[in-house]
Amino acid sequence: MSSTDPLVIFTPSGKRGRFPRGTPILTAARQLGVDLDSVCGGRGICSKCQVTPMFGEFPKHGVIVTPDALSPWNAVEQRYKDKRGMKEGRRLGCQARVQGDVVIDVPPESQVHRQVVRKEATARVITMDPATHLHFVEVAEPDMHEPSGDLERLAAALRDQWGIETVTAPPSILRRLQPVLRKGGWQVTVALNRDHHDHAARITEIWPGYADHRIYGLAIDLGSTTIAAHLTDLRNGEVKVAAGVMNPQIRFGEDLMSRVSYAMMNPGGAAEMTAAVRDALDELARSIARQAGIAPELILEAVIVCNPVMHHLLLGIDPVELGQAPFALATSDSVTLGARDLDLAAMNENARIYLLPCIAGHVGADAAAVALAEEPHNSDDLVLIVDVGTNAELQLGRRGRVLACSSPTGPAFEGAQISSGQRAAPGAIERIEIDPVTKEPRFRVIGCDLWSDEDGFAEAVATTGITGICGSGIIEAVAEMRIAGIIDASGLIGSAEQTGTPRCVAEGRTHAYVIHDATATGGPRIAVSQGDIRAIQLAKSALYAGARLLMDEMGVDRVDRVVLAGAFGAHISTRHALVLGMIPDCPLDKVTSAGNAAGTGARIALCNIGARAGIERVVREITKVETAIEPRFQEHFVAANAIPHATDPFPELAKIVTLPDVSFNTGGRGDGDPGRRRRRRSRG
Amino acid sequence: MSSTDPLVIFTPSGKRGRFPRGTPILTAARQLGVDLDSVCGGRGICSKCQVTPMFGEFPKHGVIVTPDALSPWNAVEQRYKDKRGMKEGRRLGCQARVQGDVVIDVPPESQVHRQVVRKEATARVITMDPATHLHFVEVAEPDMHEPSGDLERLAAALRDQWGIETVTAPPSILRRLQPVLRKGGWQVTVALNRDHHDHAARITEIWPGYADHRIYGLAIDLGSTTIAAHLTDLRNGEVKVAAGVMNPQIRFGEDLMSRVSYAMMNPGGAAEMTAAVRDALDELARSIARQAGIAPELILEAVIVCNPVMHHLLLGIDPVELGQAPFALATSDSVTLGARDLDLAAMNENARIYLLPCIAGHVGADAAAVALAEEPHNSDDLVLIVDVGTNAELQLGRRGRVLACSSPTGPAFEGAQISSGQRAAPGAIERIEIDPVTKEPRFRVIGCDLWSDEDGFAEAVATTGITGICGSGIIEAVAEMRIAGIIDASGLIGSAEQTGTPRCVAEGRTHAYVIHDATATGGPRIAVSQGDIRAIQLAKSALYAGARLLMDEMGVDRVDRVVLAGAFGAHISTRHALVLGMIPDCPLDKVTSAGNAAGTGARIALCNIGARAGIERVVREITKVETAIEPRFQEHFVAANAIPHATDPFPELAKIVTLPDVSFNTGGRGDGDPGRRRRRRSRG
Repeated sequence: MSSTDPLVIFTPSGKRGRFPRGTPILTAARQLGVDLDSVCGGRGICSKCQVTPMFGEFPKHGVIVTPDALSPWNAVEQRYKDKRGMKEGRRLGCQARVQGDVVIDVPPESQVHRQVVRKEATARVITMDPATHLHFVEVAEPDMHEPSGDLERLAAALRDQWGIETVTAPPSILRRLQPVLRKGGWQVTVALNRDHHDHAARITEIWPGYADHRIYGLAIDLGSTTIAAHLTDLRNGEVKVAAGVMNPQIRFGEDLMSRVSYAMMNPGGAAEMTAAVRDALDELARSIARQAGIAPELILEAVIVCNPVMHHLLLGIDPVELGQAPFALATSDSVTLGARDLDLAAMNENARIYLLPCIAGHVGADAAAVALAEEPHNSDDLVLIVDVGTNAELQLGRRGRVLACSSPTGPAFEGAQISSGQRAAPGAIERIEIDPVTKEPRFRVIGCDLWSDEDGFAEAVATTGITGICGSGIIEAVAEMRIAGIIDASGLIGSAEQTGTPRCVAEGRTHAYVIHDATATGGPRIAVSQGDIRAIQLAKSALYAGARLLMDEMGVDRVDRVVLAGAFGAHISTRHALVLGMIPDCPLDKVTSAGNAAGTGARIALCNIGARAGIERVVREITKVETAIEPRFQEHFVAANAIPHATDPFPELAKIVTLPDVSFNTGGRGDGDPGRRRRRRSRG
Repeated sequence: MSSTDPLVIFTPSGKRGRFPRGTPILTAARQLGVDLDSVCGGRGICSKCQVTPMFGEFPKHGVIVTPDALSPWNAVEQRYKDKRGMKEGRRLGCQARVQGDVVIDVPPESQVHRQVVRKEATARVITMDPATHLHFVEVAEPDMHEPSGDLERLAAALRDQWGIETVTAPPSILRRLQPVLRKGGWQVTVALNRDHHDHAARITEIWPGYADHRIYGLAIDLGSTTIAAHLTDLRNGEVKVAAGVMNPQIRFGEDLMSRVSYAMMNPGGAAEMTAAVRDALDELARSIARQAGIAPELILEAVIVCNPVMHHLLLGIDPVELGQAPFALATSDSVTLGARDLDLAAMNENARIYLLPCIAGHVGADAAAVALAEEPHNSDDLVLIVDVGTNAELQLGRRGRVLACSSPTGPAFEGAQISSGQRAAPGAIERIEIDPVTKEPRFRVIGCDLWSDEDGFAEAVATTGITGICGSGIIEAVAEMRIAGIIDASGLIGSAEQTGTPRCVAEGRTHAYVIHDATATGGPRIAVSQGDIRAIQLAKSALYAGARLLMDEMGVDRVDRVVLAGAFGAHISTRHALVLGMIPDCPLDKVTSAGNAAGTGARIALCNIGARAGIERVVREITKVETAIEPRFQEHFVAANAIPHATDPFPELAKIVTLPDVSFNTGGRGDGDPGRRRRRRSRG
């Protein structure tokens, strides 16, 4: 290019250069590294390279653009516009050629690496660069004098036309290659899946001619209880369908440890659970494709995040080693394999499945996904990320250093092992307030927007009933009981006399607080028992002890902010969590919920191949802390039994609530002694 | 090492170096690049590193070796000797340490890259370096503070202890990894399969502790008619079992083209044939493992060579494109895939299958294997290699340039479409001589060493009977008939009057020559008909025309030598082949048989991974000549109809035989006109 050549300026990137007259805009964009899409490689077929030329005076750029700065609108553009429509003012970048100085705007939908704003509050963006891309190619016809195979000529075309060096084809593509090439008249569209390790490209699908298919990936969050999947458009990152199913492994054990036990006790038990979860995934994929109205063959990828036990069971690995020290993973690195390896039939048979790396035997690919979504390694302030499930997975860090551990909270936070507990489902009490004076409760149940003391509540809940307390409900109940002086700092429920409310009723040698009693009409009595308080104390002590252990390891007394991840984190009241002492003392406005951060991490890894290599690097640099062998964990655990925990002053908590100084500890009554419950529960 | 360190000299390599006292011999060998085996990595377990120290005066090497030049025989060596036995004078290279100047002989069985002398006459050697090797490793135990996965620690051990950079494990290995590591007390033996393209090593098998298993590969020659396999010990190249079965696809068509037609005419026909050949391969592998008395899991590799149609049918690719110009292959490069991809269950589930590259649409992986075995690209003189099957595959070349083509000989050379023809089986006439004076034949049949005019012949063939003529028999018969003046140069059989023998009998408007007549006793009459002569003429003309076409392309009139490959080449009489004019005129002693060169090529590729990369390079440099579109092929074909062909003088042939100058062409009788038969047959 010489200085007399026309100047081409691209917006919004600002990239500019001089190009000889006659250069297609797409060519100029490519040479400047401007992010302008094209599937057909500049053949006027795909229309992905649409641009908006700008005319007039551009003092900022120092150019005046005249209407003849580009070659005239041509027949290819007219044909495309007639057939598919095109916005006014747009041109095809492959057809419009440079004639004079010009300013070219690349609209967002024409960018390959367009950015997708995540719906979550954090509003980070995902840059689209999935492992799978479509490429249209023209393949040389076979020649008896140069008898190379059709695959080799296709590979040569991909090399010449797209700069892709190494291409492989699985047997099923080899089988279909010849008829598809001939049907397409030696023009085909291939879906290529790149491997971020060896950069080899694998052909996962092939269509005759130019195929303007939408292609999809599934971001799957495979939890112990539920499996959630997002069908994501691999061109623009849009979620087409979100759906979930229960994890059918629940019939083998509610929590992970009981599933590990099932595997240990029953020959073939692990294989049974593997088959169950694979079936569920397959059925979920099938149902999602149906809901989206797409052929399952268009699902070309999946990213799966899960805890280590689910990870092993999905891969068909007996999880027995994860049930005992030293909690050795069979493999900790990321795993990439084929859909058929996991018996997933309801997607393309060549679909590639990527499992994120595991951080440790108790800190799985789901925690890695949370790290990918929340980026503690890029945080300027010290952030504690808490993902509460049957195990809590904790990450503490900032730029330069991240620590992780898991803590055996048990299932109490999920409403299990609570006398009136239940899963979060319509009819479950999810919010509760107790008047500190009257000690009377008011509450809300899932499925109804009214509080229980509001007009019309009884009618509104008539169909669902009031059936129990879910995880977030029990946390609020315990915290509210503490604020209202119904329990003391040690967690003991006072008697009716001590608390001044008849809702405190004797149950054996302890008391329970009755929230709702419908026994008169044949309904349930929903109460918080002393045992429930103890279960929550154990769970929150474990969670807090894990956080404290990481803080010790980091050498800090305070964290700057807390992120609650997971479905639980999305529903929990941060105020009540602070009262309970689940998390370290922290300004209330610095405790946020990240929603399903693991699922978000899966979507990021699905939409951006670079994120895979990135998180693999990050995971290797995370320092793992094993709670099971740290004596200080036990110390923190015991010390955190009180509500809130007893070891620290709570300046931030004091700003939001004043806790009554009551004590119901009458001495001698066994249950008042938290030490009796110090036993470590099995993990899971 | 300093000049006062002891000198260590290895034989037979002659490699030498000075090493500090105390250096194990194995270490010295490795540092000098001496080819000394070890599976256990010097732990005194595997005994593969046995050496023979030599004592006394070695004027050639300028050293005197005293008995104390090595550390004394130690307990590890004694234990090994007690348990497994060890030849007198041997030491373990990992145990014996340098104390003074020493000469160490490495016996052949201790060399990793030992050379295997092929049984074939050419006596070339195969250097053992298979894709699969065993490695014994000690793996670090899991550590809660460094929670890497078992696979990652195994990979680290292979890197540290064996220098292997990248290791992958298929799902089934992942599933078994944890129990095997624990059973072996963190010592395991792994079978690693290297890929010669990306050098990645894949774990294909894993055993607890040190496993002294023999591991095997199958070299498979997948022919249109028969499938032959050699079970080969991957440590030393020994063939443990050789076996074969008929290709069950024969029921879909005797020759390749009729199988292609079957695929075209019958929906699902190609899939049917794919299933049939895979079943047969699987059954063959199963039966071979049974014969060898080994577990099928110990078969860790297979190399398959075959023609393009078999190649495509095996891979499940419809061969329809190979049945019509331009004869496009789906893929021409080598193919590597898993045993499961080909439904092969009777070998290790992770066994890797390697198919050699195809040269062209009619010149397949079998021809590539012939090139690997016969190395025309390394030949100093100009060699013509002829592999006769239903298609003849021809290669002509020398160092610097190799040409290849295939020629549609049809099945006549295999005894098919011959009136008394049959496959080579007991009872078939395979050798024949005709007395030029009496015109009486004598012959031998397969399964009997006697000639038909020798005493005891009748008794010897009583069980098999005399049932027909096989391919080599019909060639000898036609050549002998020409030598004896029973047919003339145009191929016409004379009458009894013209030839002077009552064995020439009228059959319609032509004559037949009766070799054997048992009709009186209810047995067959075995004769050569005029139609048989014409079929052989067509076949040999095609073969010769292919050779001539290559010679034209090469710009030569003569070849220096001819190699006959294939089972047919092994049985054919070179003298008769020259008389018939199948091959260009050539000194008789320069026409040799290479036996099953394609099978040998498969064995070479199985035993030496470098040969795979090598032949892939060579194949790309072979110039392909397509007979179907070369007008000169047709000219040569017509000109070669006479016996011997009519275009050249035959100085070499004249040295071995004088052919009678007879002519039975009576004019007007249609069959005398070879032009009538000039039509090209379909290929196959």
